[in-house]
Amino acid sequence: MEFDTIAAISTPSGEGAIAIVRLSGDQALTIADQIYKGKSRLVDVASHTIHYGHIVHPDSEEVIEEVMVSVLRAPRTFTREDIVEINCHGGLVSVNRVLDVVLSEGARLAEPGEFTKRAFLNGRIDLSQAEGVIDLIRAKTDRAMNVAMKQVEGRLSNKIRRLRQQLIETVASVEVNIDYPEYDAEDVTLELLKREARAVREEIEGLLATAKQGKILREGISTAIIGRPNVGKSSLMNSLVHENKAIVTDVPGTTRDVLEEYVNVRGVPLRLIDTAGIRETEDIVEKIGVERSRQVLKEADLILLVINSAEELTEEDEALFEAIRDLNAVIVMNKTDLEKKVDETRLRELAEGRPLIQASLLKDEGIEELEQAIARLFFEEGVETQDLSYVSNARHISLLNQAKKSIDDALEAAELSMPVDMVQIDITRAWEQLGEIIGDNAHDGLIDQLFSQFCLGK
Amino acid sequence: MEFDTIAAISTPSGEGAIAIVRLSGDQALTIADQIYKGKSRLVDVASHTIHYGHIVHPDSEEVIEEVMVSVLRAPRTFTREDIVEINCHGGLVSVNRVLDVVLSEGARLAEPGEFTKRAFLNGRIDLSQAEGVIDLIRAKTDRAMNVAMKQVEGRLSNKIRRLRQQLIETVASVEVNIDYPEYDAEDVTLELLKREARAVREEIEGLLATAKQGKILREGISTAIIGRPNVGKSSLMNSLVHENKAIVTDVPGTTRDVLEEYVNVRGVPLRLIDTAGIRETEDIVEKIGVERSRQVLKEADLILLVINSAEELTEEDEALFEAIRDLNAVIVMNKTDLEKKVDETRLRELAEGRPLIQASLLKDEGIEELEQAIARLFFEEGVETQDLSYVSNARHISLLNQAKKSIDDALEAAELSMPVDMVQIDITRAWEQLGEIIGDNAHDGLIDQLFSQFCLGK
Repeated sequence: MEFDTIAAISTPSGEGAIAIVRLSGDQALTIADQIYKGKSRLVDVASHTIHYGHIVHPDSEEVIEEVMVSVLRAPRTFTREDIVEINCHGGLVSVNRVLDVVLSEGARLAEPGEFTKRAFLNGRIDLSQAEGVIDLIRAKTDRAMNVAMKQVEGRLSNKIRRLRQQLIETVASVEVNIDYPEYDAEDVTLELLKREARAVREEIEGLLATAKQGKILREGISTAIIGRPNVGKSSLMNSLVHENKAIVTDVPGTTRDVLEEYVNVRGVPLRLIDTAGIRETEDIVEKIGVERSRQVLKEADLILLVINSAEELTEEDEALFEAIRDLNAVIVMNKTDLEKKVDETRLRELAEGRPLIQASLLKDEGIEELEQAIARLFFEEGVETQDLSYVSNARHISLLNQAKKSIDDALEAAELSMPVDMVQIDITRAWEQLGEIIGDNAHDGLIDQLFSQFCLGK
Repeated sequence: MEFDTIAAISTPSGEGAIAIVRLSGDQALTIADQIYKGKSRLVDVASHTIHYGHIVHPDSEEVIEEVMVSVLRAPRTFTREDIVEINCHGGLVSVNRVLDVVLSEGARLAEPGEFTKRAFLNGRIDLSQAEGVIDLIRAKTDRAMNVAMKQVEGRLSNKIRRLRQQLIETVASVEVNIDYPEYDAEDVTLELLKREARAVREEIEGLLATAKQGKILREGISTAIIGRPNVGKSSLMNSLVHENKAIVTDVPGTTRDVLEEYVNVRGVPLRLIDTAGIRETEDIVEKIGVERSRQVLKEADLILLVINSAEELTEEDEALFEAIRDLNAVIVMNKTDLEKKVDETRLRELAEGRPLIQASLLKDEGIEELEQAIARLFFEEGVETQDLSYVSNARHISLLNQAKKSIDDALEAAELSMPVDMVQIDITRAWEQLGEIIGDNAHDGLIDQLFSQFCLGK
């Protein structure tokens, strides 16, 4: 395929030690040579080499940056095209000026994900591997990262390819039967078909069984900390953040007002809702109002309700329990270092079997137990030792469900002794649906939409 | 010098297309080889080459990342030591895991600025060039970046070296006089010394004259937008931000609550104070209270006071004028699209000669004039065409002032016909003070403190 040459800043924005402007395409070397001054022209150097020099303004020859330039020639590159990476000192302004001159010399600003899209279009990776790349970048915990890395390596792709092969062979054997009806009895063919279809369905079900945990790993568990004023909500937040590695990310496409904070609790990424609110005021309920609280509860996958064990239960506490009825929650009885005044029997009643943790956040007690309770809620014991080939992507899950449905249709048709070629249509549909996971016969709209989720410069 | 091997993440934190772990030191290649699996061992490859492969856990051999590794052998590197750069896919978790295994194999986590510090200690750059690197990274406008780049290139260093040379030659000629008193008349020597000292002082004064603008370029002008509720403060803020390129940065060492926003107004970087506050509430005075307002005014280098021209001046307006008496301010008469009710004569009186801009922010009118007024306040006309060798660094300014003082002392001693060797002591002190700018005889405490201002991984 023929593409124009694209360029973008490939490092996160912000002050850093290194910032990189990346070019990909036929003209990458020629464009870079127009603004690069070094010992050799880049078109003359060997592939996979690094060169010291300066980026200068093409007209004024004014020095813009001191740089190291990496030259990677097609096809042994991420995009399978010529790639030039201009490694700058890391300032926001300077890297933007380097990008400006690159664009003024004929490169086009890349769309988000366009480098990875080219890797896909040029056949270096398939669609599920590309999606693994996004997940790898967004991963919030080690475990989530391992899952994504396996996808980048092509584990899911290989499994899907094997299932498709199995389906296509089944269809082929049915074809034989259709072409040579005298060759075999139709019911023998049907039996074979049913057996194969059931085997494939079982494998699809196996993949789907990992989906819930996969989605949790990928997207995190949105977690709300609620409770009356001064029961210790912000202490709980701080304990969770300090005991664990907190990851703060900008939500792409929004202003800097929306920041998300994740804490990694034993491999479970908790996305804390309205962190800023709690930190500032120590009082989410008062600050955001009852309406907003309800909204927060609705969005939450997990609620941590904090109760002051040194006071009697108040109407407010009871109202909060009422608000979280039937929701996924852990109750934290805080301030156990003080004299206990709370009615624990009533508390257990209200908890309705949900975990009740005794804690003194002041004395750093109970956090361990809380973390255990959270991990148990979302992962079976011993999951760590298992193979981490989760299906985590909503698109994949949907396609797997569709494929399973198609196979069910095929099996039902077979049970009803419908003509074999009717059954074959359903099997072929399942084969196509699985193909969409890896990007076989993926349509342009899907591809555009999918790659637009990437960050710029990837 | 002999150093241990250091490592750090050299790209800004955040999700991005590329994240880099950088190692520097004798063991950089050996350490990298313990966790890198590729076609060749890195210790065997040529310098300035790039290699595809995987980072694996040294014990479990589990794949952590798909990477491109750059190998740069001493001495043709940034630190003059062996450097390995591991180029990862860009996720926060994966780059941290790569760093973890690098550290577990024997590298030490680098301190902020430690790579640049080694470049200095190994003699690749001098101190003022190193400081230029920080400024380059922090630059908020093109002009500030050009100034920093010139410093990285060594323009200031060269000038300082020339001045020191001049001083040392003067001292030498005085020495000749002391050693051979019969050789020349003492007053002739004194005349020469005075002439030379005056010439150097003039050059130092020339450098200091650029300091105010240099500091502005480097640090930005802290700007407060004030005014009564609903006069259009947030409209003004948004106009400034939209018309110009806004740069939002985290303030290093603080939590994410403190974000700074810069807008680049004709090369002048305005640092908007309490942006978030204005955006949220459209009403800084009401929100932050009078006390806090006074604090904001105290911190501000520039005040933009917004007045509603469609209403008569209120007591509040008058109080605001009172609060900014004698301060650097531009008055913005907003809402000129409506019928004018404000008493313009009184307004001019209150403005006390400070610029008064008519604007209709709703209709996008007046912004151009406001920007002109701001640029005129801080830069003389035509400064763009001049050489941009500003002195912008507070440490440099202080040392230049000290050196100037030492030369003044020398001149005074000479005028009083003090013994020549007394005069010589002052000249030598000036020579040492200038030397500190480029890091000659800089003490360890200064060096540590200076490099700690860098970001991690630089």
